[in-house]
Amino acid sequence: MKIITVSREFGSGGRELGKRLADILGYDYYDREIIASIAANKGMDKDFVENSLENFSWKSIPLTYGRSFIGAEAVYSIHAELLAEQNNVVKEIAKKGRDCLIVGRNANSILADYNPFNIFVCADMEARVKRCKAHEKGTDRNPDDLERSIRKIDKNRARTYAMVSDGNWGDPRCYNLTVNTSGKSIKALAQATAEFYKFQMDM
Amino acid sequence: MKIITVSREFGSGGRELGKRLADILGYDYYDREIIASIAANKGMDKDFVENSLENFSWKSIPLTYGRSFIGAEAVYSIHAELLAEQNNVVKEIAKKGRDCLIVGRNANSILADYNPFNIFVCADMEARVKRCKAHEKGTDRNPDDLERSIRKIDKNRARTYAMVSDGNWGDPRCYNLTVNTSGKSIKALAQATAEFYKFQMDM
Repeated sequence: MKIITVSREFGSGGRELGKRLADILGYDYYDREIIASIAANKGMDKDFVENSLENFSWKSIPLTYGRSFIGAEAVYSIHAELLAEQNNVVKEIAKKGRDCLIVGRNANSILADYNPFNIFVCADMEARVKRCKAHEKGTDRNPDDLERSIRKIDKNRARTYAMVSDGNWGDPRCYNLTVNTSGKSIKALAQATAEFYKFQMDM
Repeated sequence: MKIITVSREFGSGGRELGKRLADILGYDYYDREIIASIAANKGMDKDFVENSLENFSWKSIPLTYGRSFIGAEAVYSIHAELLAEQNNVVKEIAKKGRDCLIVGRNANSILADYNPFNIFVCADMEARVKRCKAHEKGTDRNPDDLERSIRKIDKNRARTYAMVSDGNWGDPRCYNLTVNTSGKSIKALAQATAEFYKFQMDM
């Protein structure tokens, strides 16, 4: 069984690259399914789970949970509970024993014992703002505003990664391959990454 | 004409990866030849040029130049002169118009106008110390001592890069591809990188 993990900066096209890569290789693909599983297992709302896992910070306190306001202690406790459940769900995927590719969820750290092939996808800020603009049909947020949102999301990803691992999020030494998508076609990069992946196994 | 640049952490196997990659692709390969050209053009000793470019720092002052001691001002002035000559030599290579691969020398920054394909090669410290040990035949330096040397060389590379570019040395956004060699075969990685390179062009 082979496992690939894809971590990515927001707006870098990492999710699309991961999906295409899984398709090329014929691997099972996991992304938002993991959030859905965590939500189902905990009997919680999917959006709440995603929001809690992605946007956890002091600033998000107090969060509303269902219809009630909840305090800092409860927020921390729920966040810890969700991280633990995320750990379980990601490990269950690996236990299936099928070749798979997992986007996000700190899977590179959670599944370190399986020696996965870990990919980080990045891009310069200009390219990321442009990509977000292209995907935000109908809305008209200005680039500065988008840049602030991108930085905030990445900061949260880095913070969560720091909670569950010894390494630093985005440090190329924590991944086997780091792909910069700026100015490149994601479709070509997915094919290129698939080729790299196949040839690096040939030791 | 296509240009590939390879920047690398000391002990990561980046030079070997670059050499193999150039061989696979049939590209002209430049590495220490550049130091030799700078030395010849300036009428200076090759080792002095290499030492000045690689180990430039306040701590290296006073340096001996030939048989005389020289002061801080002269060291700075020589360093600036060598960086300028390095710039010329690297640009001359590009002007030849032949497909080529250049290891080190901040070529990614110097040749930015040519839109080269930029690779950074890294590895975790344990792997780098091990690689240095394997290459240091006959000597018996302890791992802590080797680690200090590795960090010092990288610090100098980062400092020189900061002098000639806007980006940060080793930041994956400054390169198209960052390859972590820890625990992998350089031979397989060179082939994998060649495949990645060929497919990413297919836009």
